[in-house]
Amino acid sequence: MTEKALIAAIRKRARGRGSSVLRLGIGDDCAVVRPAADEEIVVTTDFSLEGVHFRREWHSPESVGHKCLARGLSDVAAMGARPVAAFLSMALPKELVEGRRGKAWVERFLDGLLALADRYGAPLAGGDTARSLGPACFDIVVLGTVKRGQAWLRSGAEAGDAIYVTGALGGAAAELLMLERAPRQFAGLKKAALGHPHFFPEPRLAMAAKLAKAGLVGAAIDISDGLSTDLGHICDESGLTAEVDAAAIPVHQLTMEAQRAGLAGTAIDLALHGGDDYELLFTARPGAKVPRRVAGVTVTRIGRMVTRRKGRPQMMLRDQDGRLTTLEPRGWEHFK
Amino acid sequence: MTEKALIAAIRKRARGRGSSVLRLGIGDDCAVVRPAADEEIVVTTDFSLEGVHFRREWHSPESVGHKCLARGLSDVAAMGARPVAAFLSMALPKELVEGRRGKAWVERFLDGLLALADRYGAPLAGGDTARSLGPACFDIVVLGTVKRGQAWLRSGAEAGDAIYVTGALGGAAAELLMLERAPRQFAGLKKAALGHPHFFPEPRLAMAAKLAKAGLVGAAIDISDGLSTDLGHICDESGLTAEVDAAAIPVHQLTMEAQRAGLAGTAIDLALHGGDDYELLFTARPGAKVPRRVAGVTVTRIGRMVTRRKGRPQMMLRDQDGRLTTLEPRGWEHFK
Repeated sequence: MTEKALIAAIRKRARGRGSSVLRLGIGDDCAVVRPAADEEIVVTTDFSLEGVHFRREWHSPESVGHKCLARGLSDVAAMGARPVAAFLSMALPKELVEGRRGKAWVERFLDGLLALADRYGAPLAGGDTARSLGPACFDIVVLGTVKRGQAWLRSGAEAGDAIYVTGALGGAAAELLMLERAPRQFAGLKKAALGHPHFFPEPRLAMAAKLAKAGLVGAAIDISDGLSTDLGHICDESGLTAEVDAAAIPVHQLTMEAQRAGLAGTAIDLALHGGDDYELLFTARPGAKVPRRVAGVTVTRIGRMVTRRKGRPQMMLRDQDGRLTTLEPRGWEHFK
Repeated sequence: MTEKALIAAIRKRARGRGSSVLRLGIGDDCAVVRPAADEEIVVTTDFSLEGVHFRREWHSPESVGHKCLARGLSDVAAMGARPVAAFLSMALPKELVEGRRGKAWVERFLDGLLALADRYGAPLAGGDTARSLGPACFDIVVLGTVKRGQAWLRSGAEAGDAIYVTGALGGAAAELLMLERAPRQFAGLKKAALGHPHFFPEPRLAMAAKLAKAGLVGAAIDISDGLSTDLGHICDESGLTAEVDAAAIPVHQLTMEAQRAGLAGTAIDLALHGGDDYELLFTARPGAKVPRRVAGVTVTRIGRMVTRRKGRPQMMLRDQDGRLTTLEPRGWEHFK
């Protein structure tokens, strides 16, 4: 496979998937994007690295492609925006550019990525291709549109705001533990299926669209590194302290299974610190009428933002007896 | 160095470098960009991979950082656009995130990148960081603005158009040959200096701004893979054939030096097929008054676009005696 042939194949698959915002896609030095007069553009980039974010012996190519794009789409959702275009940079090792098996892997990777792209109207509009001397390396860029001045920011929380999360937490981390113990049980997961938060996370774009319309959200972030770390970012940027009720945290059923199986970490630890959930974490004014279910996904109030006081920790966890303990950010840290 | 500390350091260095277009930079799930009402956004992404695009034992960190961004800026120039924001994704191997020497390398890489970013008003607005299990991997995204509908496209050439290139060609390829033979001679090239097209290529943004204002350009592309390959893209997208006058091609003086030194390839071969020049290749109507010098850089007419005829090659080279031979695209090919 030559580089030109690979680009031509991708271009063919992306063709006809433009949008009113994407004016020019694959095939020039740049793509061209034109937002509506009352909109602005949001931009995010995310790596998916072999050996770090995925393993070819553990993850189907479809899962790798799906997760690659899902990470970018989730960031767009966390701004209250709508995706309009994606850009994929691929550095491929020798065995993925030579021979039929390599080509089939790349095709199936694109199957997974483009199925998700189609579902959310984010056509592939460009990128880069290169040979990698190390593991496979993917970098996804997603552009979205949002009404001017309406993007949700991490700095948007106020003292007194309630804290919410969507869905249930810790499922992806629990499934990763199960995968590490028994990879064969997960072989052949090719299609996005419910109940596999590690392999096929669902970006909360439908949720974000409805919440944006309702105008209820103060600050927001997606839970990619773990609740404790991502809530820390909201505290940092908003200059506030967070109090979280441990009992209120919606714990994914897979965390219970992992706990029962004796895998590392209790269910609540996985829910607090497990990464890769791609649920939304957001704040709303205390009196805001946030529905318990939005776009088919539960929304749970888990705590509140309070004024920061000297000598008090940035995040606190309230146990069932009302006692407050320090909540440390113990989510994903790449350089550990 | 923790990931958080690295991001904080980059954010600190990028602070205060916003623009009217960049509304929100590093620190949220996405950056926010707002073009003027009469503008649209161009987007490009480019890898810089250790062992493929650079070697740490050959290139100073400043050169790697400069080239990383220059590749993206050059794509923006090739659309006739103006850069407004850059996004840097970095996957760093263990030795670059641990210890003082690694930290110093990353600091100097950022020095090179940010010096160029400052010069062209492209503030660092986001990106991603990760640990690499293989070589270092950088992916740069550059966004630019251009007047609506005015972007230069590869498909914009018409039969009869004259073909132009900026600057001189083959210098980067010649310098790479010299580097391969005697790396020590090039040790310590830390600052952008004239005469080092391989280490510190200059994106033709000033040239592009003046040509865009004059409205002279039909099709355009930057010469990143080599004249023969990049001209092939204009032929492909415009559905035309190109005739190039060999004697007219502006040959970089380093190609002569390389030829005299007996390094691989003649001067004209390096100018025709050498990559990494980052000069602009463009077409203009035959009667257009294209100045011979724009923004301090020479502009040279090297041939013409003609109607494609069945059985005729896509590109032809005219020698000094007027004989036409086939010009094959023999520039850079990543998967070779």
